[in-house]
Amino acid sequence: MLERIDNILQHKCLVDSDKSILLGFSGGPDSLALMDIMHSLGYPLIAAHLDHGLRPESESDARAAAELAASRDIACILGKTDAQSYASDHAMSIEEAARSLRYGFLFRQARELGVHAVAVGHTANDQVETLIMHLLRGSGLSGLSGMRFRNVPNPWSQDIPLIRPILGIWRREIEAYIKDRGLLPLQDRTNLDTRYFRNRIRHELIPYLEGYNPGISPIIWRMADIMDVDDRFLQQSTHAAWEDCLVKVGPGYISWQADSLRRQHLALQRRILRRGIAWLRPGIRDLDYLTTVRGVEFINNPTLDRQVDLASGLRLFLEGGVLFLAGYEADLPLNEWPQIRKKATLRFETQDEVSLDSGWIIIARPVESVSSVRLVVQSNDDPYQAWIDVSAIEGPLTVRARRPGDRFKPLGLGGHSLKLSEFMINEKLPRRARDKWPLVCRVSLPEESGGGKNPDEIVWIPGSRLAHTYRIKDSTRKAAHLHLSHQE
Amino acid sequence: MLERIDNILQHKCLVDSDKSILLGFSGGPDSLALMDIMHSLGYPLIAAHLDHGLRPESESDARAAAELAASRDIACILGKTDAQSYASDHAMSIEEAARSLRYGFLFRQARELGVHAVAVGHTANDQVETLIMHLLRGSGLSGLSGMRFRNVPNPWSQDIPLIRPILGIWRREIEAYIKDRGLLPLQDRTNLDTRYFRNRIRHELIPYLEGYNPGISPIIWRMADIMDVDDRFLQQSTHAAWEDCLVKVGPGYISWQADSLRRQHLALQRRILRRGIAWLRPGIRDLDYLTTVRGVEFINNPTLDRQVDLASGLRLFLEGGVLFLAGYEADLPLNEWPQIRKKATLRFETQDEVSLDSGWIIIARPVESVSSVRLVVQSNDDPYQAWIDVSAIEGPLTVRARRPGDRFKPLGLGGHSLKLSEFMINEKLPRRARDKWPLVCRVSLPEESGGGKNPDEIVWIPGSRLAHTYRIKDSTRKAAHLHLSHQE
Repeated sequence: MLERIDNILQHKCLVDSDKSILLGFSGGPDSLALMDIMHSLGYPLIAAHLDHGLRPESESDARAAAELAASRDIACILGKTDAQSYASDHAMSIEEAARSLRYGFLFRQARELGVHAVAVGHTANDQVETLIMHLLRGSGLSGLSGMRFRNVPNPWSQDIPLIRPILGIWRREIEAYIKDRGLLPLQDRTNLDTRYFRNRIRHELIPYLEGYNPGISPIIWRMADIMDVDDRFLQQSTHAAWEDCLVKVGPGYISWQADSLRRQHLALQRRILRRGIAWLRPGIRDLDYLTTVRGVEFINNPTLDRQVDLASGLRLFLEGGVLFLAGYEADLPLNEWPQIRKKATLRFETQDEVSLDSGWIIIARPVESVSSVRLVVQSNDDPYQAWIDVSAIEGPLTVRARRPGDRFKPLGLGGHSLKLSEFMINEKLPRRARDKWPLVCRVSLPEESGGGKNPDEIVWIPGSRLAHTYRIKDSTRKAAHLHLSHQE
Repeated sequence: MLERIDNILQHKCLVDSDKSILLGFSGGPDSLALMDIMHSLGYPLIAAHLDHGLRPESESDARAAAELAASRDIACILGKTDAQSYASDHAMSIEEAARSLRYGFLFRQARELGVHAVAVGHTANDQVETLIMHLLRGSGLSGLSGMRFRNVPNPWSQDIPLIRPILGIWRREIEAYIKDRGLLPLQDRTNLDTRYFRNRIRHELIPYLEGYNPGISPIIWRMADIMDVDDRFLQQSTHAAWEDCLVKVGPGYISWQADSLRRQHLALQRRILRRGIAWLRPGIRDLDYLTTVRGVEFINNPTLDRQVDLASGLRLFLEGGVLFLAGYEADLPLNEWPQIRKKATLRFETQDEVSLDSGWIIIARPVESVSSVRLVVQSNDDPYQAWIDVSAIEGPLTVRARRPGDRFKPLGLGGHSLKLSEFMINEKLPRRARDKWPLVCRVSLPEESGGGKNPDEIVWIPGSRLAHTYRIKDSTRKAAHLHLSHQE
C-alpha cells in the first residue's frame, strides 16, 4: 500500500517529497490513514482541522485530532466555525456549507503557510458516491468525471493543487491498514446518520445496486476515470474553439463570430455557450439542459427576429455576422457602427467633414467632372461611399439622428417612399444602433416642405443606402462625393 | 403528439414522407402507437413481425399483429425463428439472441424490399432503461450515449438507417394516446416477467431510484443526449487522429507512428487503441478497462523490452519509430528491412551487386582514388553506405545471414569484439528481422581463421555499422564502396 500511494503521489498528484503539504485532517479513519502513510513515506506534513460546530463533542474531537497529529510530531492548525448558521445565511444544505467552509479554511491556511499542495483523504468509495450523487441530480460529462487525483486550478486556488492520494484506495483497504497498524481514529457520528443524502447513498443505494451487480463500485470508479479523460479532451477542444470564435468579452456580454461558431461541432457549440453563460452568471450551478439546447438551436438556425431569451436575464442575438450573449446589464459596444449625438452641418462646395462618435467620420467633397465618375458610380456597391446629385440642393447638408415620422425613398425602389423605421428593419441595421444612426439630409425649401413636420429630406444613410432622388442621372450637372470611414 | 413526431421524423430521423419505411411491429402498445401515428401522418409503411417462438401463444400473436396492420391496409411480413436454440448455440442470453435475430430479420427484409429506413418503437423509457443497464454493466461514453433517433451506419446496414421516432416520448404518453384512440394492442407477457434484467430495471430499480429523485428518468434521458453529442465529437476527433498516426492496417496487425500517437490527447490515444483492438478482435464486446490503461501507458512510456501483452493474443511492440498492435496470427511486414535468404558472393574489383528480398540490393564497386574519398568517408553518417579498406582482402566478399557464434568489432569501439546478437540488440535492429539480416563478410584465410567455426569475418552490417578493422585508414591504398538501397 505504501508503495502504491507513493507512486500515486509522484505520478498522479505530482508532488515533491521534500516540500510541505497541508493535510485536511478530521481525525477519522481516511485522513488518519493518509496522515500515517504520507508521514511514513517521509512527506513533510502540516495538519489542519476545522471544527464545524455541528455536534456537541466537536470541540473535544478537535483536541483529539491535534493530539493524533502531535504524537507524530506533526503540527495541527485548529479552526472553528458555525456551519449551521452559514448554511441558513446562504440558503445551502449543511453539507454544502460545511464543505465550502472547510475548503475555504484549508486554502487560506495553505496560502499563509506557503505550502506546496493541500491533501484530502477522499477514497475510491467517496468517488463512487460522488458520481452517483451527480448522476441522480443530473449532470453531463463534467459531473460524471468526479474528483481528481490532482486538481489545479480549483475553485479555491489558481496555483495550489488539491490532491487526493487515496482516491484509488477502497475503504476496506483503509480499514485493513488501520487495523494492521493499530491506529485509533476518531469516529464521526454523522457518517452513520442517513439524514444526509451522501450517507443514504453510501448505506442504502450502493448496497441495493450491488444486488444488481456486486462489482458496481469499481465499474463506476472506472467510468469516472474514462469520463475525466474524455472531459479533459473536450475542455481542451472547447478552449481552442472558443479562441477561434471569440470577438470580445465585454462588460456583461460576450460576442463570437457567428459563422465560426456554426462551423464547430455541436458538442463544442454547447460547451462554448455553457462556458459563456457560466462566465456571465457565475452563480448558476446547474444550467438547464433545455436552455443550452435552445441556445444552440438559435445559433444554427436563427429566428427571424434574430434574438432569443435564455435564462437569468441573458439573451442571444445576432448583429450582422456577430453573435452576442448578453445580460440586461450589458454595456454593449456601439463603436462598430456610425453614431451621431448632435446635429451637424456638412458643406460640399469645398471639402468638409463631420466627426461622429468613436472615430467615425463623414467627408464630403465636390466632384470636379461628373462625366468622369459616371462609370465608378454605376458599379459602386460600397455602402460607405455615395455620389449624390447636388444640382437642386442649395446650402449645406445636415447630418442628424432619426426623428419620428422620418420617411425614405431608397435607391432601387423607383422612388417609392418607406417609413425609415421599416427600412432600417429590412436592412437589418442593428436595433440598438438605429436611434443614433447618422442621416445625411438636405434642408427642404419652404415651398417643398409644405410646412410639414420634417422640413428636410434624407439624401443618404451612410453605410446603407442612397436616396432615389439624389442618384447621379444623365441630366446631373453637379455632384458631390460622400465618404463614411472609421479611424481606429 | 402527431406534430411532435412528424417534426422528429423530419428533423431527427431525416426520413421522407413519400418513401416506404419498414416498421418492426410486435403489436404491443409502443409499436402499435407508432404504426398508428406514422400511418395518420401519411408515411407509407410496411410492417414486419418476427415470432421468436418463446411463448406458446406467439403464433396466434403473429396472426393478430398481421390483422392489426391489415385493418389499416398495411402489409405485414411474418417471420418465425427459434430464439431459445439460437441462444444456446451462440452462448447468448435469450434477450440478446431475440434481439440479434429480430434486427437481422428486419434488415434482411428492408434490403429485399428496398425501403428507405427501418423504424422501431423504442420510447424514452426504453432509452433510460438501456442507459441504466449500460451503467450497471460498466461502459464509457459510448455506452452512456444510448440509442439514437437515427443510426446509420448501424451493425446491420451501412446505408439503411435504423430510426426511433418515439425515442423522446414517454410510455405514459403512449398509453394515453392508445386510450384516446381506442387502440387494442397485444400484451407481451414477458414485459411483466422480472426474469429478464431489463424488466427488473423497469419494474424495480427505476421506481427505487425515483425515491431519491422523482425526476430521475428525464435526467438520465438528457444525460444520454449530452453524452451522445460528446461521443460523436470524440469519434470524429479519433477518426482524424487515427488517420494522422496510421502507418498501415495489415493482415492481423495495425501500425502507427509512435511519435504522432504520443502527441495525441490521452482520450484519443485510448480510443485509437480500443478501435485497433476492436478491428483485430471484433468478438471482444466489453474491452477491459485495465487493458486500455496498460496499452496507453506502454505507448507513452515504453518498457525496456519494447513490447507488452494485451488481451486476446494481442500485443503492442515498438520497432524503431513504429508501434505495432498485432495478434499471434499477424503476417508482419518484413520488407522495411534488408533480408537475405541464401548466401551470395559480392565482388568489388568491378561493379557487382547482390539482390536481397523485397527489392533490396547491395552494390559494390572499386574506389578509383582513395585520397579523393577520404573527406566523404570521414563525414559519412549514412548507415546505407560504407567505404572499406580492401587492401588485405583477397577474392570476393560473401553476403550471408547470421550464424551462431558470430562476433563483430563495430567501428567506434576501438577494435573491441562483441557477440553479434548483443550488438543487434544494442542497435535496436528489429527482433524479427535479425535472423535474416544480411552481413557482408570476408572469407578468412586458413592461417587467420585458426580452424575456428566461422572461417570468415563480418566487414559491414548494411544499414547499421562498418567493422573497425576495415575502416579507411591513412595507410589504406585500396578501397571499395558498398551501397545498400531499396527499389520500391
